[in-house]
This record gives sequence, structure tokens and C-alpha cells, in this order.
Amino acid sequence: MEEHLQKSRTLIEVLPYIKKFYGKTMVMKYGGSAMVEGELREAFAMDVVLMRYVGIKPVVVHGGGPQIGELLRRLGKESVFVGGMRVTDPETMEVVEMVLGKVNKDIVSLINRHGAKAVGLSGKDGDLIKAKKLSLPEYEDVDLGLVGEVERIAVEVIEALQAGGFIPVIAPVGIGDDEGTYNINADLVAGAVAAALKAEKLILLTDVQGVLDEAGELISTLTLEEAQALLDQGVAKGGMVPKLRCCLEALSGGVKKAHIVDGRVPHAVLLEVFTDAGVGTEIIG
Amino acid sequence: MEEHLQKSRTLIEVLPYIKKFYGKTMVMKYGGSAMVEGELREAFAMDVVLMRYVGIKPVVVHGGGPQIGELLRRLGKESVFVGGMRVTDPETMEVVEMVLGKVNKDIVSLINRHGAKAVGLSGKDGDLIKAKKLSLPEYEDVDLGLVGEVERIAVEVIEALQAGGFIPVIAPVGIGDDEGTYNINADLVAGAVAAALKAEKLILLTDVQGVLDEAGELISTLTLEEAQALLDQGVAKGGMVPKLRCCLEALSGGVKKAHIVDGRVPHAVLLEVFTDAGVGTEIIG
Amino acid sequence: MEEHLQKSRTLIEVLPYIKKFYGKTMVMKYGGSAMVEGELREAFAMDVVLMRYVGIKPVVVHGGGPQIGELLRRLGKESVFVGGMRVTDPETMEVVEMVLGKVNKDIVSLINRHGAKAVGLSGKDGDLIKAKKLSLPEYEDVDLGLVGEVERIAVEVIEALQAGGFIPVIAPVGIGDDEGTYNINADLVAGAVAAALKAEKLILLTDVQGVLDEAGELISTLTLEEAQALLDQGVAKGGMVPKLRCCLEALSGGVKKAHIVDGRVPHAVLLEVFTDAGVGTEIIG
Amino acid sequence: MEEHLQKSRTLIEVLPYIKKFYGKTMVMKYGGSAMVEGELREAFAMDVVLMRYVGIKPVVVHGGGPQIGELLRRLGKESVFVGGMRVTDPETMEVVEMVLGKVNKDIVSLINRHGAKAVGLSGKDGDLIKAKKLSLPEYEDVDLGLVGEVERIAVEVIEALQAGGFIPVIAPVGIGDDEGTYNINADLVAGAVAAALKAEKLILLTDVQGVLDEAGELISTLTLEEAQALLDQGVAKGGMVPKLRCCLEALSGGVKKAHIVDGRVPHAVLLEVFTDAGVGTEIIG
Amino acid sequence: MEEHLQKSRTLIEVLPYIKKFYGKTMVMKYGGSAMVEGELREAFAMDVVLMRYVGIKPVVVHGGGPQIGELLRRLGKESVFVGGMRVTDPETMEVVEMVLGKVNKDIVSLINRHGAKAVGLSGKDGDLIKAKKLSLPEYEDVDLGLVGEVERIAVEVIEALQAGGFIPVIAPVGIGDDEGTYNINADLVAGAVAAALKAEKLILLTDVQGVLDEAGELISTLTLEEAQALLDQGVAKGGMVPKLRCCLEALSGGVKKAHIVDGRVPHAVLLEVFTDAGVGTEIIG
Amino acid sequence: MEEHLQKSRTLIEVLPYIKKFYGKTMVMKYGGSAMVEGELREAFAMDVVLMRYVGIKPVVVHGGGPQIGELLRRLGKESVFVGGMRVTDPETMEVVEMVLGKVNKDIVSLINRHGAKAVGLSGKDGDLIKAKKLSLPEYEDVDLGLVGEVERIAVEVIEALQAGGFIPVIAPVGIGDDEGTYNINADLVAGAVAAALKAEKLILLTDVQGVLDEAGELISTLTLEEAQALLDQGVAKGGMVPKLRCCLEALSGGVKKAHIVDGRVPHAVLLEVFTDAGVGTEIIG
Repeated sequence: MEEHLQKSRTLIEVLPYIKKFYGKTMVMKYGGSAMVEGELREAFAMDVVLMRYVGIKPVVVHGGGPQIGELLRRLGKESVFVGGMRVTDPETMEVVEMVLGKVNKDIVSLINRHGAKAVGLSGKDGDLIKAKKLSLPEYEDVDLGLVGEVERIAVEVIEALQAGGFIPVIAPVGIGDDEGTYNINADLVAGAVAAALKAEKLILLTDVQGVLDEAGELISTLTLEEAQALLDQGVAKGGMVPKLRCCLEALSGGVKKAHIVDGRVPHAVLLEVFTDAGVGTEIIG
Repeated sequence: MEEHLQKSRTLIEVLPYIKKFYGKTMVMKYGGSAMVEGELREAFAMDVVLMRYVGIKPVVVHGGGPQIGELLRRLGKESVFVGGMRVTDPETMEVVEMVLGKVNKDIVSLINRHGAKAVGLSGKDGDLIKAKKLSLPEYEDVDLGLVGEVERIAVEVIEALQAGGFIPVIAPVGIGDDEGTYNINADLVAGAVAAALKAEKLILLTDVQGVLDEAGELISTLTLEEAQALLDQGVAKGGMVPKLRCCLEALSGGVKKAHIVDGRVPHAVLLEVFTDAGVGTEIIG
Repeated sequence: MEEHLQKSRTLIEVLPYIKKFYGKTMVMKYGGSAMVEGELREAFAMDVVLMRYVGIKPVVVHGGGPQIGELLRRLGKESVFVGGMRVTDPETMEVVEMVLGKVNKDIVSLINRHGAKAVGLSGKDGDLIKAKKLSLPEYEDVDLGLVGEVERIAVEVIEALQAGGFIPVIAPVGIGDDEGTYNINADLVAGAVAAALKAEKLILLTDVQGVLDEAGELISTLTLEEAQALLDQGVAKGGMVPKLRCCLEALSGGVKKAHIVDGRVPHAVLLEVFTDAGVGTEIIG
Repeated sequence: MEEHLQKSRTLIEVLPYIKKFYGKTMVMKYGGSAMVEGELREAFAMDVVLMRYVGIKPVVVHGGGPQIGELLRRLGKESVFVGGMRVTDPETMEVVEMVLGKVNKDIVSLINRHGAKAVGLSGKDGDLIKAKKLSLPEYEDVDLGLVGEVERIAVEVIEALQAGGFIPVIAPVGIGDDEGTYNINADLVAGAVAAALKAEKLILLTDVQGVLDEAGELISTLTLEEAQALLDQGVAKGGMVPKLRCCLEALSGGVKKAHIVDGRVPHAVLLEVFTDAGVGTEIIG
Repeated sequence: MEEHLQKSRTLIEVLPYIKKFYGKTMVMKYGGSAMVEGELREAFAMDVVLMRYVGIKPVVVHGGGPQIGELLRRLGKESVFVGGMRVTDPETMEVVEMVLGKVNKDIVSLINRHGAKAVGLSGKDGDLIKAKKLSLPEYEDVDLGLVGEVERIAVEVIEALQAGGFIPVIAPVGIGDDEGTYNINADLVAGAVAAALKAEKLILLTDVQGVLDEAGELISTLTLEEAQALLDQGVAKGGMVPKLRCCLEALSGGVKKAHIVDGRVPHAVLLEVFTDAGVGTEIIG
Repeated sequence: MEEHLQKSRTLIEVLPYIKKFYGKTMVMKYGGSAMVEGELREAFAMDVVLMRYVGIKPVVVHGGGPQIGELLRRLGKESVFVGGMRVTDPETMEVVEMVLGKVNKDIVSLINRHGAKAVGLSGKDGDLIKAKKLSLPEYEDVDLGLVGEVERIAVEVIEALQAGGFIPVIAPVGIGDDEGTYNINADLVAGAVAAALKAEKLILLTDVQGVLDEAGELISTLTLEEAQALLDQGVAKGGMVPKLRCCLEALSGGVKKAHIVDGRVPHAVLLEVFTDAGVGTEIIG
């Protein structure tokens, strides 16, 4: 019985969060360990389904890194990386698109199995993600091939699905005005989708604790200015740099809050959304 | 952190119940200790608000016993009881209606304070409860005065309020075709409202553990037939008799399940709806 | 037959008024003789029902003066009045709320009996009337207790009921941000509700002929400026002062016209709305 | 003042009728004196506008007799009548259609001038009246030409206009599956339209007192069976025969009541609908 | 088979036009040969029906010139023309209205026979065309009688019919605030209706090739400025002057493009809307 | 000009078909040459876009045969075929799903490039295709692995997309109640989807002329009974057998007509839907 009473208390403690986020959209970048380890996967799916049932409108954007490498290897294609990005020739792009399509449906099934109705989308569906060739000033003379960046998001297909009660799950493939297919960083897509939907939250699931300060300690909360300073002063390094940039862009695009959370913690999303715990860093717009 | 993880686990355990009851109506008879003791009151209000936010449509029906007696006493009016019912002359009825009106608004405020929007109704509002003089075969020769029973429920006003996102809170006052005002037992009103709304659940909050068997042990689950047998064989006694009868009527009127729960346990409703614990007896239709 | 022809002529004479007010909201302060004398009560109810059927959206706000005093007396509580207002301690407030609740349902029944569907509301329902302690510069050092003034009106519950075809009947009880219950002057509530709904008309039913000039003659029509002058020059006296003030506030809040009418004339509202007769004073915004 | 009070009383007496007919459709056959005499015309238009404003949905069907004859005469075309019907060759039909079109717009303007929005329709508009050549057993060997009878009514255009708040005014011209234009008796069209709309009332405006019994006395009320008997026994004669038949057909098609009223009485419709007077004969289905 | 393949190719060539005009309103002035010659009439009706089925919202405005003259002649009424306009006394106006009503229903039937649902309107229906006496500076001292110009267009009735899937067909009869009936030039009505509906296209069907230059060659495309110049320099002459003026007014009223097309070519509208051919002159706003 | 006139004539000839199919759903199985040859692909996409713009609701179901074989070969996986079906182990299924996902997005892009908005779906999206292991009586002792058949179609996601104006493009991947992924014959999926949507037409694009009789001549039209006879008598052979069966099932499931058309003819769908030509065999339900 005590256990049950404890349960009631928990529900009641969560109530203020439920009220606060009722009817709001949250965009999650799903990737890393949370996408490959069995238990973490199940936990993530439950989190998404729970969000939907307590009145939140979740949107999932996913990557597909390890699986892509594996299929390329099996097909005997070696990948070259420049600045952390895979140089993508048309043949590689085809493999990327196939793998992302498969990963997309796996996530859709995973969520459906837990009792909601997810529908997978690539950026080609309903012209959701219009893309163009990524231009990186620092690699001006390298041709990255079909690596793209978001040009604009057409939210109509997302809205049609949400109106029908479905949860959109998005693969980061863009379609160019030149009809080319582009491989886009999933964080960037999540940020752009969140901004286009004026989401309440952008949540990036990562395989690190969050943003660390110079002493290597986790920073719980950052203002937009503080986050910018971390970038300017070079405190943020490596993979954290594009993640922070993407959060800042989302915030200036109208998103209320961005979160970089530790996807290795089960139910990290739930903890971030429904408790004061927080399992990472929040950046306030 | 462990505490937070525990919280997540709880939410996830509750998810199947949330999915199951999404969009369903639940009618609660609110009374007894749960209505008078401070902490229990707060807990009940939170339960109702939580229900609404996770997609359930709660309807509250309340009584007002102790407060009525008190005001009558202060006005120097002595009450006579026959078969557990207060003989109600017009002057008494006026006091009953005033007290129930006050109690109604107290409950409305209580719920609103916890973040939902409740609206109080008496059976006169929108002709919600059409009533007639109670006819009790066993007290044929006693005039109980303005004690009534439900003739029909006009759900339009409830539906108009639910469409606007409001939680109806109902005082058990009926209006006769003879334009008389009738005092009706709140359990009966709750049962009739639940049947008229084809509710998923009828939940009667009481000050006892639930239905007891001959050995005085709590019975967790009863079928309609078993409940009928308890009545027929006289195992159910006293105040439990009308409660069981009202549950049986609701079930035969289309309600899925009826619950007689112990309102002295904080968050009894939550426990009953969202856990396997159960804090009383459920009767399955 | 002549009688019937006369009837037709009357209907036709009324047609321009019906066209003019079709779909408009009118807020009536109901009180005084019109609320206590049998025939006047019936006449008022018919007027309200007729209004609804010819396309007007009536809203009724009522007081409850005499009945409150009576119950207080029976409970042995003496009332102190300051500046025409009853000093209201918590115990008095409880009695006020009970009486107003009873009066509210009586009016609801009265209207329903004539064929419309009324629903009673207190300011607590749907947080309709947010109130605060009345601050009166002239009685700075007197504590009037729980006498309040309107802080804001939340029209959602009114609109939900009107959308369902119901006529709202409002008791002038407010709820504070401090969760306190406040007793508010019904004229003030009617004025605030009319302003919040941008009503076509605010109609105050009184027990006087209307606004009188210095010679004691009835003034049929006043502009906003003229009404202000009557206040400034002290021509308006006693109970007429707050009524005029409330009309002026409603008009500056967007109400088209305010009427102070003689509720002792049967069907005073009908006469005011549907004929050129007028049974009191109109103030044009 | 007394006059104004009288007005109020009239409105209140009318209220039960307004409640009863709220939201109901009434189809009126408009013709005879009511269509040609100035004052009667104005009175009819006011009646229609009043009906619309008190929540009734009026539909007007009109004839055009005298005007047709006049234009034919001016064009030097002599008309032959068989069994009360004009033998209609194509050239005559053209004149009929032109005159009815003009009459239609006159009625539309008349109603609009009194403050509603009428829209004229012929049976060709939206294929409203599908017609076929009238077959009269008693005149088997006479070719009446383009005299038609109703085959079916397509109510869509009426409903589209009513949804927009417009009052349909219908000229009795039908369109054949053979694309021919047919002149149809306006009473028949009114009856068929009333049946297709499941109208509350069919009201035929005539230039007689109503249905008379053998002694020449007005009959106020007839049952369906009594009306049939009057026809069978030959008591009903001349122009009354088709009118009675058309009423009987409408009643068996689902119309609640049919009225044959004296259009020479100003506001005859109003008297019939809103008073107990009645200015003709009602036939109860 | 080759023929069928040709058919497919045609459909595909037309697709870009269908996409471009999907959901757009086009107002056509229908008159001249296209209205009197059998084959051209059928072709026009098919064009209108096709437009509706491929998602365009057509509105037809028609004149009635020759038929009016004929009936006047038959009635022995001589018409006087001033500046190309018929001096219209009340008796003439009556004839005009009757003829236009007949013509209107003929067009309605014509369109319906080809499978759409048309509904005819005069400017009196729903007060569609409010008119006033035409004031022509150049004929200041001549009284043209009931010749009118458009004062305002009330689009509600058009929109109610379009919402029901109907095609409005409009006769150029206006109703004055003085309740007078006015005969208005159909081109002017078409232009005003197009402007009021913010139409995609205004298409005037004429009996000439289009706008000619000084050398008598057809001009395919004109800018607003070039069209104005043609008027200013007197290159446009005779009946083309009012047509051009009406196009310019429509364009400045928000219409995208105006077309003066040769109605003697079968399917001229289809050619203009769905091919690059063009059979006349387009004026670009 | 003659060419343009020819165009008009074609549009007009097509009009009856457009009217007939307005608002109807048509399900197309897309595959074979029409899916791999450049010009045929473009022609198909145009056909689908045209259908949508003339009011038809197209749904596309596709296969992916050749591409699957190619990737399997590149991955060094040999396929075994039993009864025309690929034995599908989990690893093969993964490849199948990846390839179908890629093919799906190619078709989506192809259609979008021609001006409509397509959205790709697999049977996992919104649990669209619930599948189970295919049971083939004739191969009882062979385990075909993850080859499935349709158990039920959940049309909600299709309807949500159609409501938003999108064209659904479906890959024939099913999801089992056992959460397994199943490879299903695309013809079967098209048939089941058509039946679930009560489609007007099921159109199977093939690489043969149509159904041939014993003499090898094309049969233009078959009744359900005749088609059954062809199967029973063994006249239908090879790949035609399952196609005919699938058509018969669709017809008995409520589809109006099924077509087996020659996808090697450009615009075969257009020809079949909009002309009398027909490029294959139609089977009438």
C-alpha cells in the first residue's frame, strides 16, 4: 500500500508540469545510445507515448550514424570524413537514404508498440524539408557532395498528421530545389523543425552529461548569452559546438527552451520534462 | 537522482491506465471525510485536476449532510429521520438548498485553485435533474416531504460545459414537473448521471473500507450477480445497501464499472483509477 | 377578430426593434420589487424568455438584499452598515453566499418554467468574477470585511453556456486571488459583465421611476456628459449615485446604452427594449 | 402608457407560439389579393420578415395569374382554358416564364425592403423542380401543352440559401428530364416543397374565407379523414378541390399541418401562426 | 489508339493551367453570338462546367440585348438610344427585367444540362447589386431613365451558393436605395462583381477579335498603362471603349487579369484559360 | 489555331469522365516498366497529379522487385524463390524494407516534382497494414519466412493525409501482431487498400497487354463470373493468376471496377480513366 501511496504522490508532483505543457509541441532529436540500447529504446518510446497522452504534441527527429557506416562497409564503400561530416557521393547518399528509411520505420514501430500512432516522414514527404548544399566557409575548397542544410520547413504534413492524432517521426533527408537528395545533420533538422513549429522545447538526446564548464563540471542552466559566450571563448568543444549553435538558432527562431540531455539515462526525456531533476543542460531563450 | 528515476518509473507504470481511460467520462460521488478533512480535500481536488489533464472527463456529484444539520440546528429546526432519510418540509428544503449551494461553490473553488475550471450546477440549472417525490414501499404511510428521486437527467448542460473544457460539479437538488424542489440522495444522483452519460466508471467515495463479506473481510471485486446476492442474502447492511443498489442500477444503465472506495485514504480516486491497488470494492457490469 | 388584428399590428410595430437587436447581448441587473412580487417576477421571466426567442442573448445578474437580512436575523447576527454597505465578516459572508445561491436557483427555475433553459453561476464558477477587497477612499479607516469589487471577468463560462443556448444567471459573489470570497454590489457586477461582453444594453431594474432632475421630473434620455454632470453637481443622490457611476463605467467599457428602469412596472424590460415608451432613463454612450 | 402595456401583453401572449415554432420551416403559397393589393402586400412581407426574426424558416412559393394574362393580351395571344388550366404552347410558356420571373423579383424586393434577405428561384435554379407533363385522366384527349406536375424537388439550393440566412422565394416553373420548361400550379409546387422539406406548416393564401361546409359555414379545423370525405362527397367544389388535394398530399408527405387562409385579411399569416384566431381552415395530419 | 494518345498529351499539356487556377474565381461576361448561336452556346456551357470540375469557381454575368428589342417591338414600344444606351422608362424597364429573367433561366438550364448546378440571380436577390441612376457627364441634359450604374456588390449570396457547389449566373438588374429597378450594362456588372470577389480573371466575351492597334492588327497583350494609352489616344473606339474602361476598373479593383475574347470562336473561354493560344486580348493588372 | 481547337475538343470529350469520377478514390498498383523507364515514370506522375486536380483522390501502392534483387546481390545474398515468392529471412527482410523505403521516397519526389504533394507510407506508419505470415496450402511444408499477407488495413492515416490534400504512396511492408515485419505482394496490398477505402477503381499496372483469352487475344471487359471462370478453367496462367484473384477480392470487398492495364503504354492510367480506349482489361464488380 505504501508503494501505491508513493505512486499517487508522484503523480501529484508531476501535475504542475502536465498543466504547464498541456497542448504544447516538443521536438526531440533522438540518437546515440538511446537509439541503440534495448532498454533505453523502450524507455524513450514510453516517454514519447506518455507525453502524447498527457496532452503534449511530440515530434521526433532521428539520425542513423552507426547503421549507415555498417551498410556502407558491407557494400565495400569506404567513407571519407571532413570536419566530422561524411563526404557523400550519390551512391553513398542512396545508402544513407535506405538506412534512414529503415531506422525511421523501426522507431515508428517501436512507438506504435507502446500504444500511440506514429507516422514516419522523410524530408521528401510533402516537401517537408527543402534543402540546399551545405556551404561551410572553413572547408570552401572541399566538395562534401550531397551534404545539405535546411532551407525551409513546410509544416503542413506535420500538422495534418497531428490533427489526426499521429506522432511524426522525421528522417533528416532533404530535397533540393534542384531535386537532389541531401543528407542533413539531424540536430540541425530538429532545430529547424522546432523553430518552424514554434515549439515549447527542443530536446537533444546526446551521449554526454550535458554542457560542461571549464572545470569539467556540468552546467544546469545557461542563458542565451552565456551559451554564446561558451562558444565564443572556445569552452564548448567538439561535437558540443554544433549542438549549442543549433540550440541558439532554435531559440532565436521562437522556441522557448532548448535542452541538451544525457540520453544514456533511462527516461531522460521524462526526467527533463516532468521533474526538477534535469539530466543535462537547459538553455533559456 | 534515484528519487527522480523512481518518479519516471511511476509515470511509466501509470501509462497503461492513462491510455485505457483517455477521453472517457468518470462520475464521482464526493462526500464523507474526503469532503471535510483539509488534507483529504486537497488530495481529492488534485486527483480531479490530474484526471482532466490526462484526458479523462470527470464529473463530481456531492452531498452535504453535516453542514445541513448544523445550519438547521442554528436555526432551531429539529430534523426527524425515517429510514435514514431526513423528513423535509419546505422550510427544511430551503435550508438544504442553501447549504448545498454553498458546499457546491466551495468544491468549485477548491478544484479551480488546483488549476482546472470547475462549474457548479444544481439540478435546476438547465433542468438537469428532473425529480419526483420518492416513493418507498416500506414507508408507505410516512410523508417524507420533499425527499425526491431522479426521474430523468438532461445532460445538455453537462455537455455544453465539457465542450468548453469545464468540470461539472453537481448538487443533488432536483426540480419536479410540479416545480417543487426535491432533496435527493447524492449516491442516487451520481448513479443516474453516470448512466445518462454512459460513463466508464462510477466512483462512490465512502467512509468505510468497501464492501465486506460475511467474515468482515474486504471484497475487492464483485460481479453484478455477486453484488445482487449480497443484497438478497442480507450480507450487505445499513448504508451499504443503497450504495450497492445505486451501483447495480448504474451498471445496468450502461456504466462499465462501479467502485465503492475508502475516501479516508488520501488520493483514493487516483489509486483506484491509476493503480492495481484499489482501495475498496469494484463491481463489474 | 379586431383583437387579433390589434395583435398583428403590435407584432409588426415591434419588428424594427427585433431586427435591430437580433444576435445582441443584453445584461440585466434584476432586483427590487421585480424580484419579490409574484406578478412582477412572472412578467420578468417572460420578458427574458421572449428576448431569447427573438434572437437576443440575455444575461441576468441579481442581488439578494432582503433575503440576506432575514436569514442573518434568524441566525441572530446583527449587521452593521457603513456607507450603505454591509460590513461582512466571514460568518456573514457564508450566509450571504448561501442566500444568493438559493435566490440564484429560484430565478433559474422561474425562467426555466417559462420555457427557456437558464443556468445559474456564482463568480466562483469557471473563475467568472475575480474580485479584490473594495477600497473606498471615503471610508479608509473602516474595515468593511469581505466586501469586494470586480477585478476582472472571465467570460469563457458565459460563452460556453450561450453557445449551448442557455441563459446565464449570475450571483454577485467574487473570488479573490487570495481565494477569499467577496460580496459585491450586483449593479457593479452587471456593469462589469456588460462591459466584458461588449453588450448592446445594460438594464438596471430599480424601484424608482428613473433618474430625476432637480425639479423631481423624470429624465428620459441622458448623454454620458449630462449624466456625469448630474453626479458632479450633486443632483443625483443616494442609491442613484452608484447606479449612475456603474452605467458610466459600462458605457466607457464599450456598452452601447445603459437603462435605469422602473422595475415596479410589469414587463418593464420589454417596454424598454421593444417600444418607444421607455419606463425610466436611458444613458447613451 | 396603457397602449404600451397592451403591447407587452400581446408579445407575451405570442410567446408560446414563438417557442413552438422556433427553428421550424413553413412553406407559404403566396397569391391572389395578397399579392396585388398594396397594403396586403406590405403586410405579407412584414409577416415573412417577422417569422424569420423569431426563428422560423419561411419559404415562399408564388403564382402569377393576372399578370400573365395581361402580357399575353398585350402580345395578342388568346388563352384557352381546359379544366381551369391554361393550354400552354411554347410561345405562351415563354411569356409565363418571363412574367413569373418579374413577379418573383418583385416579391424578393418587397421582402428585402422590409429588412430580410430574400433570394428568388425558379424550378430551373439548381434543378430545384424536376417536372413532367401533367397527366389528367379526365382530360386524356386534350393536350394541355407545357402544363406540368412535380416529379421531384431537389432541396439542396433551398438549404444552401437557408444556411446563408436567406429566404427562398420560388416561381412555379419546372424543368423536364426532356429539358422542356413546364408551367406548374403554384399550390402543387408549395405542397411538394413543403413535403420535401418536412415543413411544420403549409399555408395556402387564397381569396376565400377557407373551406366551407354544406351550409356554407367556415370549417375551422379538419382532420385528414374529414378533408378526404369533403372531397369524396363533393362538398368541396371548384378551386377548393385542388387546394384540398394538395394539402392532403403534403400532410401524407410529412408536413405537420396545412392551412387554407383568407389572404384578403391583412397579416393573415401572422394571425394563423401566432394567434388562436385562425383566418381560415387548418387541416391536421 | 494514336488518337487516344493525343488525348493524353493534351490533358497533360493542360495540367499546368489547371494547377495554376485551382480554387480561383473567374467572372465571365456572357453575350453576343456565344449566347445566341446553338453550337457556341453548348460550347460555352461545357467550358463553364469543365472549369467547375477542375477546381475553378466560375461566375457568369449575362446581357440580353436582342431579345429585349424583340419583345419591345412586339409590344409596340419604340426604343430611343442615347450614346449607345437605351432610354429606359418604367414600362421599358419592366420588359427588360422580364426578358433578362427569361434569358437568365435559359442559361441556368443550359449549364445544368451539361452536368453542373447553376443558380440564376438578379441584382435584387439578396440585394446583390445596389445601383443608382447612371450619371454621364457627356449627356448631362438627357434623362436616360432607369439606366443605372453599380453602387456596391453584396457578395454574400454568391458565396452562399458557391459554398453549396452552385455556379451563380447573374442578370444585370440593379436595385436602388430608392427601391427603383435599374438596367445596368452587363460588362460593368461583370467588372464590379469580379472586383468584389477579387477574381483571378475577368473574361468579356465579345463579337470582335479583341483589341486592335492603329493598323487594325490584334493586340495579344496589354499592360494597364498601354490600355490606358489606347483610350487616351483614341485608338480604342466605339464599343471597345466601355469594355476597356471596365477592364481597367476591375484590374485596379484587385482582379489579376482581364481578357477581351472573341466569343465567335467555339470554346473561346477554354482556349483563353487553358492554352497559350488566347483568342483575343489580355490586359495585365 | 486548329491545334488549339483540337485541344478544346479533347477537354470537352474528357468532361463526362471528370464528372463521373469527381471526389472518388482510385487505388493504383504501380510497378514494372512504368516504374523504371524514365519517360513512363514521368507520364505516370503527371497522370496522378492530373487526377488529383480534377477531383479524384489517388492512392499509389508500389512494389520494388528489381531493386531488391540488386542490393541483395551486392550484399552477396542469394535469394531462393518458391512459387514465385522470395524466401525471406530476417536479413533479407531488412534489405527489402530498406529498398522499398528508398523506392517509396523516389516516387514521392517524382509526384511532388510534378506539382502535387505526396507522402510516403509503409505499413508500419500508423499501423496501416497489419499482416500475418502467409499461409499457402500448396507449399505447406516450405517456410517462406517473413512473407506475409494482409490481415487488416487501418485507413486512418490515409484519411488524415487526404484531408490535408496529400497523395498517399504506400510501400507493401506489413507489421505483425507479433511485431514482425512482413514482405507482402504489392498487388495484394493494393487490393486490400482499395477494398478498405471502398474505392471506385483498383488499377494494376503490369507489363502485359491485359488478360488474354485462350486464343491469346486481349479481353477488354470481364464480369466477375467470367474472370472466375478464367481462373477455374486454367486459362489465366502465371503472374496473371494472383492479379485476377486480387481483383476479384477487391470487387467483392466493395470496389466498383478493377483494371489490369499495360503499364508500358505512356499515360496508361489516363487512357483507362479518361477515355473509352482502355489499354487492358476491366473487370466489373
